[in-house]
Amino acid sequence: MSFDRLIEKIIEMKNPTVVGLDPKLEYVPEYIRSRHIQETGETLLSASRAVLDFNKAIIDEIHDIVPAIKPQSAYYEMYGYYGVQTLAETISYAKSKGMFVITDGKRNDIGATMEAYTNAHLGEVTVGETVIEPFSADALTVNGYLGTDGIEPLLKVCREKDKGIYVLVKTSNKSSGELQDRKLDDGTPIYALMGDMCEKWGADTVGKYGYSAVGAVVGATYPEMLTELRQRLPHTMFLVPGYGAQGGGAEGLKGGFDANGLGAIVNSSRAVMCAYKKEGCDEKDFAKSARREVIRMRDDITQYINLK
Amino acid sequence: MSFDRLIEKIIEMKNPTVVGLDPKLEYVPEYIRSRHIQETGETLLSASRAVLDFNKAIIDEIHDIVPAIKPQSAYYEMYGYYGVQTLAETISYAKSKGMFVITDGKRNDIGATMEAYTNAHLGEVTVGETVIEPFSADALTVNGYLGTDGIEPLLKVCREKDKGIYVLVKTSNKSSGELQDRKLDDGTPIYALMGDMCEKWGADTVGKYGYSAVGAVVGATYPEMLTELRQRLPHTMFLVPGYGAQGGGAEGLKGGFDANGLGAIVNSSRAVMCAYKKEGCDEKDFAKSARREVIRMRDDITQYINLK
Repeated sequence: MSFDRLIEKIIEMKNPTVVGLDPKLEYVPEYIRSRHIQETGETLLSASRAVLDFNKAIIDEIHDIVPAIKPQSAYYEMYGYYGVQTLAETISYAKSKGMFVITDGKRNDIGATMEAYTNAHLGEVTVGETVIEPFSADALTVNGYLGTDGIEPLLKVCREKDKGIYVLVKTSNKSSGELQDRKLDDGTPIYALMGDMCEKWGADTVGKYGYSAVGAVVGATYPEMLTELRQRLPHTMFLVPGYGAQGGGAEGLKGGFDANGLGAIVNSSRAVMCAYKKEGCDEKDFAKSARREVIRMRDDITQYINLK
Repeated sequence: MSFDRLIEKIIEMKNPTVVGLDPKLEYVPEYIRSRHIQETGETLLSASRAVLDFNKAIIDEIHDIVPAIKPQSAYYEMYGYYGVQTLAETISYAKSKGMFVITDGKRNDIGATMEAYTNAHLGEVTVGETVIEPFSADALTVNGYLGTDGIEPLLKVCREKDKGIYVLVKTSNKSSGELQDRKLDDGTPIYALMGDMCEKWGADTVGKYGYSAVGAVVGATYPEMLTELRQRLPHTMFLVPGYGAQGGGAEGLKGGFDANGLGAIVNSSRAVMCAYKKEGCDEKDFAKSARREVIRMRDDITQYINLK
């Protein structure tokens, strides 16, 4: 019904970060890949199983430090339906360890089709008389280009099943301004209009920390817009990509948080998954190395904010 | 490298339409559903297998009339990874029957992640030394909110593997105007800016019929914009949803086509899949009923255009 569940985990762990599990096969240590290739050949199945082992080992090492994971759907679709099975099993494993799961799918459509995406990723479907939750993430990233028709089916499930969404507002990439920074005839930039729509869509789901079930994706690479949007969108929690690998520094994130150090969760993907490569440690130490990186990241970010 | 392959099929069949395979379980005749429930229970597996049987029977009856199918990813994700397996097998079956396949996924992301979506749906991945095409559709619908960074990885594969994309420009839903119709400070509506970006992205992939590998989604429900955009975007082929069930009539589509009756392909989903319900025929006759509907649709649309 809001992001209260996630915010409570953030407060408890004193850690407003999320680990993006975007596992390209080349990030997975060789010894895991070759074990699965021996078992099931050079197939999408062996790739998917290797990724699942990799994810689980990282989850085991970070779930007591980090409140949430964000698997990016593209990296699972890339290994076909076995990859999508690994997505489902990664979500389920992280939840069994108490983590909050944000599926990064940037899904978008209208009416019955958006309902299907919602039921797939956050809700449930019925076969005969049996009710099944296909993926059952806690939150989903979505794209609002289609307007309210594309968001309403999500809001219904957010209310009924205590789920949340993050709508793309100002993305972290270089060309995000081509459309998002263009100004409307009344002077409002498109990203701000999209942000205003998030406030409107979330209005009746505001929880006890002041944030609704409708969050916004705002990139770490544009610190001034992060600050501007934090003020403009007081009830909209931010999911912030672009820290680390994409060049956004910790101090620049400050403006995305409120006076209590809440209102944003910062993502890091590659720096965590590939920490063992950067450290140059034994590849069998990859999960411990990921743990060291999430601690470093937590401390790097929390030094600038007032999270009690 | 362009939409030439699709356009040639359209000319050969004298039919600029595509059938959307968006199979909710309730569209599948009861006798198919119950057969699979008997075999594998009330599970996502039985639902997915029922959908696959339904799709194949429809493809068998329409592949000599209709050049393309457009499976909507949401309706497969809804049945979990087994559903996604049915998506892969539906694509493969339609291609084996000579059909052109447009996966309707409205995918969007940046850089390496957009590359992963591209490799998943249009391209290939490598496991060990083995190259595999996970889904291998001919075209993919995408959302351009993130700008050029989100499109470039697609263009590379469009060139190398003769694939195409359709970018959301003006969608068929009621609230599409909330963002898409807003005017920029220079007076351009956002949908026209997005259309102009399609022309730019496709510029070096224009094929022998004058259309590039970058198409646009423009809804049948806004005939005046269809006409306006046809003139504004001479190298951009349109994928037109909203005919039939959503209220767009055949005469209103005229403006989306060029003087040769090319430049657009019109989608119908529910009216084809559920033709047997509307006809009131025996449910075992569903595929023949779908065939009657695609013939009716073809004749309804081609009466207004000059396709030779």
